[in-house]
Amino acid sequence: MNDVAVLPLSPDVIAALQGVCTATLTTVLLKKGLRNVWMRGPRPLVPGTPKQIGRAFTLRFVPAREDLATPASWGAPISTRAAIEAMPPGVIAVIDAMGTTDAGVFGDILCLRMAKRGVAGLVTDGVVRDGDGVRGTHLPVWCQGTVAPPSVAGLTFVAWQQPIGCGGVAVFPNDVVVADADGAVLIPAALLDEVVALAVEQELQEAWIMEEVRAGTRLPGLYPPDEAAKARYEAWKRGRA
Amino acid sequence: MNDVAVLPLSPDVIAALQGVCTATLTTVLLKKGLRNVWMRGPRPLVPGTPKQIGRAFTLRFVPAREDLATPASWGAPISTRAAIEAMPPGVIAVIDAMGTTDAGVFGDILCLRMAKRGVAGLVTDGVVRDGDGVRGTHLPVWCQGTVAPPSVAGLTFVAWQQPIGCGGVAVFPNDVVVADADGAVLIPAALLDEVVALAVEQELQEAWIMEEVRAGTRLPGLYPPDEAAKARYEAWKRGRA
Amino acid sequence: MNDVAVLPLSPDVIAALQGVCTATLTTVLLKKGLRNVWMRGPRPLVPGTPKQIGRAFTLRFVPAREDLATPASWGAPISTRAAIEAMPPGVIAVIDAMGTTDAGVFGDILCLRMAKRGVAGLVTDGVVRDGDGVRGTHLPVWCQGTVAPPSVAGLTFVAWQQPIGCGGVAVFPNDVVVADADGAVLIPAALLDEVVALAVEQELQEAWIMEEVRAGTRLPGLYPPDEAAKARYEAWKRGRA
Amino acid sequence: MNDVAVLPLSPDVIAALQGVCTATLTTVLLKKGLRNVWMRGPRPLVPGTPKQIGRAFTLRFVPAREDLATPASWGAPISTRAAIEAMPPGVIAVIDAMGTTDAGVFGDILCLRMAKRGVAGLVTDGVVRDGDGVRGTHLPVWCQGTVAPPSVAGLTFVAWQQPIGCGGVAVFPNDVVVADADGAVLIPAALLDEVVALAVEQELQEAWIMEEVRAGTRLPGLYPPDEAAKARYEAWKRGRA
Amino acid sequence: MNDVAVLPLSPDVIAALQGVCTATLTTVLLKKGLRNVWMRGPRPLVPGTPKQIGRAFTLRFVPAREDLATPASWGAPISTRAAIEAMPPGVIAVIDAMGTTDAGVFGDILCLRMAKRGVAGLVTDGVVRDGDGVRGTHLPVWCQGTVAPPSVAGLTFVAWQQPIGCGGVAVFPNDVVVADADGAVLIPAALLDEVVALAVEQELQEAWIMEEVRAGTRLPGLYPPDEAAKARYEAWKRGRA
Amino acid sequence: MNDVAVLPLSPDVIAALQGVCTATLTTVLLKKGLRNVWMRGPRPLVPGTPKQIGRAFTLRFVPAREDLATPASWGAPISTRAAIEAMPPGVIAVIDAMGTTDAGVFGDILCLRMAKRGVAGLVTDGVVRDGDGVRGTHLPVWCQGTVAPPSVAGLTFVAWQQPIGCGGVAVFPNDVVVADADGAVLIPAALLDEVVALAVEQELQEAWIMEEVRAGTRLPGLYPPDEAAKARYEAWKRGRA
Repeated sequence: MNDVAVLPLSPDVIAALQGVCTATLTTVLLKKGLRNVWMRGPRPLVPGTPKQIGRAFTLRFVPAREDLATPASWGAPISTRAAIEAMPPGVIAVIDAMGTTDAGVFGDILCLRMAKRGVAGLVTDGVVRDGDGVRGTHLPVWCQGTVAPPSVAGLTFVAWQQPIGCGGVAVFPNDVVVADADGAVLIPAALLDEVVALAVEQELQEAWIMEEVRAGTRLPGLYPPDEAAKARYEAWKRGRA
Repeated sequence: MNDVAVLPLSPDVIAALQGVCTATLTTVLLKKGLRNVWMRGPRPLVPGTPKQIGRAFTLRFVPAREDLATPASWGAPISTRAAIEAMPPGVIAVIDAMGTTDAGVFGDILCLRMAKRGVAGLVTDGVVRDGDGVRGTHLPVWCQGTVAPPSVAGLTFVAWQQPIGCGGVAVFPNDVVVADADGAVLIPAALLDEVVALAVEQELQEAWIMEEVRAGTRLPGLYPPDEAAKARYEAWKRGRA
Repeated sequence: MNDVAVLPLSPDVIAALQGVCTATLTTVLLKKGLRNVWMRGPRPLVPGTPKQIGRAFTLRFVPAREDLATPASWGAPISTRAAIEAMPPGVIAVIDAMGTTDAGVFGDILCLRMAKRGVAGLVTDGVVRDGDGVRGTHLPVWCQGTVAPPSVAGLTFVAWQQPIGCGGVAVFPNDVVVADADGAVLIPAALLDEVVALAVEQELQEAWIMEEVRAGTRLPGLYPPDEAAKARYEAWKRGRA
Repeated sequence: MNDVAVLPLSPDVIAALQGVCTATLTTVLLKKGLRNVWMRGPRPLVPGTPKQIGRAFTLRFVPAREDLATPASWGAPISTRAAIEAMPPGVIAVIDAMGTTDAGVFGDILCLRMAKRGVAGLVTDGVVRDGDGVRGTHLPVWCQGTVAPPSVAGLTFVAWQQPIGCGGVAVFPNDVVVADADGAVLIPAALLDEVVALAVEQELQEAWIMEEVRAGTRLPGLYPPDEAAKARYEAWKRGRA
Repeated sequence: MNDVAVLPLSPDVIAALQGVCTATLTTVLLKKGLRNVWMRGPRPLVPGTPKQIGRAFTLRFVPAREDLATPASWGAPISTRAAIEAMPPGVIAVIDAMGTTDAGVFGDILCLRMAKRGVAGLVTDGVVRDGDGVRGTHLPVWCQGTVAPPSVAGLTFVAWQQPIGCGGVAVFPNDVVVADADGAVLIPAALLDEVVALAVEQELQEAWIMEEVRAGTRLPGLYPPDEAAKARYEAWKRGRA
Repeated sequence: MNDVAVLPLSPDVIAALQGVCTATLTTVLLKKGLRNVWMRGPRPLVPGTPKQIGRAFTLRFVPAREDLATPASWGAPISTRAAIEAMPPGVIAVIDAMGTTDAGVFGDILCLRMAKRGVAGLVTDGVVRDGDGVRGTHLPVWCQGTVAPPSVAGLTFVAWQQPIGCGGVAVFPNDVVVADADGAVLIPAALLDEVVALAVEQELQEAWIMEEVRAGTRLPGLYPPDEAAKARYEAWKRGRA
């Protein structure tokens, strides 16, 4: 089931996005008319987790029902285990847990297997379980925290590679996810190249503005820049080249 | 897409469930180990809406994204319009709106078309829009109320006949939904016959207990009945036959 | 257990409070320094339910646990059934459901028994189940609405006549509860006489102010009244005597 | 203070908007890029309240503080009483109560005075108090319900005719508010004429679509209309002229 | 009052539970039919707090009322002070704060006294106050964080050693509580021995599975183990003995 | 606009408050009848942030509207930039973000400018964006965390130096704010001197009580102190002088 092919992501795009923070990405996406691209809930499980960039590989849970959400279900053909074995290296697994914070989507065993498969990261609006164990796997994880109960205490796994919601954001397979200390931001697949180009420029401009503020410049006329400031910025940019 | 065949529902089952309230169904399902079968949110839009019973025909929304959730999307192949045209008569459309209460899943036009197709009811954990218009279609609707904004103000439609969550309950295509003044209850397809039989008996026993309380009997020993009360009930039941 | 004697409530107090709305009571209690006496959640189940006044008879639930909250527990010595049989006529049963809205504290059978015992009303921050059945018992009920599931789907009954919270208000046995269309207000037992006297006067003054506004008087100087307005009010009051 | 002049509202605009429901307005505003114009919370206090249209006259509360929010404050120069006396006829008072649902912004006396002054309506994301009294004034009110406690139990009044939030929507003095059975929608003052024109046309087109659905037309190609449907609609429209 | 005798807890049980994480306990309890045993809210106040295991000693708060929740109440016979003096060494104080997060149940003085008495830990669904002070006492604390206001700003203390709810879980005196980095889990007193035995075995099996995953084994057939995997596990287990 | 003069704050008051924790301040304010002075939400962004004390300089946001909340608005006369340039050294900027947690009020550039201007701290019930950048500015910040999206994704800036709500507390320009590890507490300007005097004494008494508890004294009679304890405390205090 769910055989949506995972698209490659160019190393150039990854390199460019490594230099851009998620805050800058949201500014650029807002200027393109997209105000709802930052997922509410996912946070780095481990402070200092390095930024991750990858295609979204989606997983879906629905609420638990005692006849479905059982330890026995973990062995069924449609299971989180099968979904993990379908993940190619480099993807970011994005898990729709409907914001559930009292049942962990995955624990140490599943996270270790993901790390082994080269998955770039796990992003969920839910939680993981056995926090110490998960931290030990070194899989980069963005979630709402750690709890004790298993997924089946609150969730039923139903599918992978379908469109999902995660933290109030629509995520489709192959959208690009960037996750850093401020959380996880979605770039729609169709807008990728344009957003990357604008974000690199925006990041540079803000670096210059920070220099100016550090030097004592007042904000009005600087941020956003008026014509004079723009000219100074362009000169500075030429000087860097 | 989504070609899950809708199973028929026997007229005998429908007739039996007409005599059972959703409160009784939840008691019977709890005795079978199912505590989470009542959907949080759906209420009759119109007081006095007659009870509806039908197979679940599911629809799924994810959050809105400005590049996807547009009036233009209403004409796309995967649209609420196409989903409605796929509904056979007698089903209950169960719509996963993720509990969204500031964007209406459907308005008067879509509800009128559903009524025309013989759909038995609409159950959602979200809201509908243009309440006066929807009421005018006479489609039986269970929802959280009415609002002005269209679905695309908060929601993106993605699929039908997939497993969903609705009001915190897992709903699969072909599960059976019963909706009355107290809301909507799910009966898992596999448990249908057993639940119907137990519920009819439970309803009868509670009717007898109400007669007893009306006559002044104290609760201890009566509800739940001790051996003496059970004997009196059995005698009463034989007398009715 | 829980043998807190229920104190009588004088017919004069009941008669005086019949002429005072809960809005006026909260104003008087606030002037005495009590800002938190109105319960969040309880609403008349049936519009037009007549005002009820009575001593609080408290009941407590804690969350459900599958080994405790079972249909079998309904026959245990500490059960809602036993609590009901301990209620004297005229009390208002105040039920701490911790604001739970997906499991009904009581259904038609228990409410009918309470009506039979002459209980003045049921006030809860939770919900009741089998709404049509409960309405048929004519017991005055203030709650958050009606649902299908039984109490044991979400709640475990543990005690009666202990101090409780209900809708964010502390309620002790023998406090006085007044419930009308705007909800339920608590009067601490120790403040009863003083509050009743002040409330009757406050109600009268507001009636005079309404007459003045109806006649076209502007608000400043009238509400609250300045010295001139106070003099006119006193004259009006003398004229009524 | 707060002497923002209230702009007139043309009778033609009012008449045009009388023929348009708030659901249609939100569709038109969304097409103009505005997705957040419907206030979360306000509902007609009395079912069947006629639609109201008017310029927004704003009021602001902040949370209560025991040294500020006192009955004595009702006589201060910056008081709800003074704000009411500053309201010209025809405006809709929009009250930012920060969504507070346990302290009523206004009661019967203030609402009666507003009705006397010819205020078109009261819209709040909070609640009113003394529901029976307020209903008796016949002031059209949109709110979250009725409670007993006075504003000072939870709120401090601070200003009128400043920008506010109401139900998650930014409201500036002189924006236009339309309130009907589905709630209250804001039209930014600068977009008024354009929105009115588009809404009248949208309403007409949806009326024609309803006729088509009533006659059995399938949804795809009709809603949204394809070229053939558009042509039929234009012919129908010409036939009406 | 409240003289429920605290039962001893065998050193063998404590030693066995030291080797089991709360995540494993919830899996075992779910297999016994208990899905709701993990408390929502309590977290270690200090990262790295060692695991605590003890009998539950319960305390109850209800909401604050200005005539009851006063600094003077701290000297009353039924006070948090008296409750603390009733705690034997080794218990875990479980405090029902109704999830209140803006008034601290205890501050540095009360926590220091508990530490002095040899209390094993404090678990609450509320918060503590004067976080730096509490951390200085070295009492192991699980809570929702730290705040400034005292309990009486939001809470009234009413009893100890009664059944309570804590974080949505029913807790009875003498139930066993285990708290670690993932929070606090309840083991019903009657199930203690069985749960401990199952948990030790479950923990061992998961350790073996982690070894397998580390070695590159795929998940299907391993977790949950099929017959072949079970055989390998049993061999491994024998090898350890 | 908004030219409310910022009052000075005496170095003696600042020095006295440096020795008092916010927990003690809330106890003292509660004894003066003020139960609602601690802001829900603001937390130190950086653990170990030193305590800050200053006059409140207020800023107000309302919800975002696509026609108002735009990057272009950052250059308008009423902008966060202009507000920052109006802040004198030593104030604490208190920002009413209506509790919004998915759009950051300020990012690194604005925080750096505030630090440059000598602002003592930023307190908000919302969040900041670009957490790493903000931390790099060394501005003391109390907020609900960090996110990626800019303010205009959810907020519209409207004014400074008006009365606001922040975390459920009413804040007026020139009230005094004290922020430490437990959050931010407001002292009404009019009560400043009295509160400072009482707080210094309260802090000393609690230090003595901690010494007593450390020495093994039981709580009853000590906290609150009975007459004997008071005498011992007075003696201890004299001994320190």
